[in-house]
Amino acid sequence: MAVNLPPLPVLHPVPGIRLGTARAQIRKKDRRDLVVIECAPGTQAVTVFTKNRFCAAPVSVAREHLAQTATHALLINTGFANAGTGPEGLDDARRSCAALATIMGCAPQAVLPFSTGVIGERLPVERLVAGLPDCLSAMSESGWAEAAHGIMTTDTVPKGSSRRVVIEGKTVTVTGIAKGAGMICPNMATLLAFVATDAAVEPAILQQCLSTAADASFNRISVDGDTSTNDACVLLATGKSGLEIRTAEGAAYKAFYETVHDVLAELAQAIVRDAEGATKFITIDVEHGASQADCLEVAYTIAHSPLVKTAFFASDPNWGRILAAIGRARISQLQVDRVLIHLDDVCVVRHGARAPEYSEAQGQAVMAKSEIRVRVDLGSGTATVRLWTCDLSHDYVTINAEYRT
Amino acid sequence: MAVNLPPLPVLHPVPGIRLGTARAQIRKKDRRDLVVIECAPGTQAVTVFTKNRFCAAPVSVAREHLAQTATHALLINTGFANAGTGPEGLDDARRSCAALATIMGCAPQAVLPFSTGVIGERLPVERLVAGLPDCLSAMSESGWAEAAHGIMTTDTVPKGSSRRVVIEGKTVTVTGIAKGAGMICPNMATLLAFVATDAAVEPAILQQCLSTAADASFNRISVDGDTSTNDACVLLATGKSGLEIRTAEGAAYKAFYETVHDVLAELAQAIVRDAEGATKFITIDVEHGASQADCLEVAYTIAHSPLVKTAFFASDPNWGRILAAIGRARISQLQVDRVLIHLDDVCVVRHGARAPEYSEAQGQAVMAKSEIRVRVDLGSGTATVRLWTCDLSHDYVTINAEYRT
Repeated sequence: MAVNLPPLPVLHPVPGIRLGTARAQIRKKDRRDLVVIECAPGTQAVTVFTKNRFCAAPVSVAREHLAQTATHALLINTGFANAGTGPEGLDDARRSCAALATIMGCAPQAVLPFSTGVIGERLPVERLVAGLPDCLSAMSESGWAEAAHGIMTTDTVPKGSSRRVVIEGKTVTVTGIAKGAGMICPNMATLLAFVATDAAVEPAILQQCLSTAADASFNRISVDGDTSTNDACVLLATGKSGLEIRTAEGAAYKAFYETVHDVLAELAQAIVRDAEGATKFITIDVEHGASQADCLEVAYTIAHSPLVKTAFFASDPNWGRILAAIGRARISQLQVDRVLIHLDDVCVVRHGARAPEYSEAQGQAVMAKSEIRVRVDLGSGTATVRLWTCDLSHDYVTINAEYRT
Repeated sequence: MAVNLPPLPVLHPVPGIRLGTARAQIRKKDRRDLVVIECAPGTQAVTVFTKNRFCAAPVSVAREHLAQTATHALLINTGFANAGTGPEGLDDARRSCAALATIMGCAPQAVLPFSTGVIGERLPVERLVAGLPDCLSAMSESGWAEAAHGIMTTDTVPKGSSRRVVIEGKTVTVTGIAKGAGMICPNMATLLAFVATDAAVEPAILQQCLSTAADASFNRISVDGDTSTNDACVLLATGKSGLEIRTAEGAAYKAFYETVHDVLAELAQAIVRDAEGATKFITIDVEHGASQADCLEVAYTIAHSPLVKTAFFASDPNWGRILAAIGRARISQLQVDRVLIHLDDVCVVRHGARAPEYSEAQGQAVMAKSEIRVRVDLGSGTATVRLWTCDLSHDYVTINAEYRT
């Protein structure tokens, strides 16, 4: 069950973007598992991808294709990740793109492939290709919600976010969908997220916008510390709104960036709320670090500690496990007698030891909540990091012990 | 249930060492929770301690005392770790040592304190001190097995190892006990392990022997990646056997080192076999790395991956998760097309992708076993590392969600 995740909000159409979804029986029967997103001519596409060295075949092919020509369509399948599949996997991804290109009348390089699912097994290209006509006949500007369903794997709910804002007198839409519930520790990228806007944005500015916003959203979440081979986030800009952004200076970019950031942050947090087996949504703030890298290292060490995560699952204010995690974080210096730890507003550790005024009942009251903020003050600088994570429950073990069966 | 862990072997007495155990009701009733180990005059004591910055009060006090005088006794309690307890915790550790020193008629600095259990709560010094007479009246050279019970926390079985060897015509004994089942990822140290020998060894040589052997044993295991605040390993050398080792060159040191190493390795592996919730004992070999640091990083990334660990629990040959873990390991270079992965003797990945001859049935047959070897060949150098870990089961979650209740 997702933690305090509201139903899919209204996903405003983005002029210039159409989406079609089909049940292609790629791995399971009767499940939406194939999505095509079509972009109007002139659309700019920018991406961030996984930093896992074993990146999946579709990631390699999408990078190749992006370098060669303008993007006309995204082709997304679930069921199989097409990772760890060698040269045959690259062929499979290219053949899938070529099949869609033939139907749509564009170059194969104008199609970007994305896959998610089991690693190491071949993509069933024939079933995928057989499903394409259904996708194309379902194509619509209002296809976002169906597409949000169509990219799910172990997700229990679809994830989407949408904003309409007025910038320089033009109404601009930013709409996005994302999937992901396990193998979540994005590294300069995310799981699969597809975001579109009708602003017209210079490619370099659009890339800067996506990279910065992804860093502050998808790169600040972790479910289990496992970085996927397939992480990818795409931002499409169709230009249909009439708003043009040619510089990263000034109010128009700032308003546009904030809107994109809000959509990405909502999607990223939705992934944590729907994390495999999650029962708690945890915000970790690490403050007053010597550097942002130090803050991140401390925050991730806490977020990845199985002992911290099981304590959250048990609603147990076992702050000693947080202290032990901070103590083993790989940072160059830690002044233990300056460390402060708060659970919500309750100070549990001061000067590196149990706060004298702390009572177990106070900690218990915080831990009983479904949303908890852990605030760590390192007392050694001005850097700050916030990230979001979840607990480790029996259901996480069950889901991941049964995933392929 | 421990994975293929035989009953406690015969633990040979070490001349010059006596052990006494008591039920002091430190945290739970009717449980052996207090141990005193007495060393004959002239015994050399060397140690390795946790690298966690939040080291526990007893670790700080033991370091202080070691620097000041020869060691006469070790004082060990379970129930409370006396970590995260600030200046009061240091006082508690010092008062406990002083109480034992008064009874034994030695300097307080001749007592080294060790604690294990819940972090962040004060040590009940009065109950601990009240239990000391029972420990002392139980003191015996054959007290090793009872002491192995007396240092347990979430361990399901006591752990000990003992060897008798003849070196230079002298019969030498090395006997050790250890505890630990969770918060196990020792860093240049271990959980609690107490090892004694009747060899006479120069202090610098004895320290070298312990540090090297601990590096190859306790520093090569991981249950959950969480490094404890209290890890400590002590090697005592009483000299009663008549064997004297004054140099690290030559056959005598080599034979002695190998015996100490065997005892430490058996204890370290016993900790993994009895790890919280473990159902599988996994050996991870990373070979042909550019450096030992690279091999270690890859091995630990695999060992700590929740997805890899739950796949082992499910007996699921989901090698894609191993591949993804290798791909995110923090090493400077990875030549993915050279990576080979074996499960026991079954090659699952060659040239960075699924091996053509691999069948799921072969992988399934290996994963059904309770002892599995994962061999990763990085194809980029000559360095090698072996470490031992276990799976992540429902029982791990249950044990750590209930530990304090």
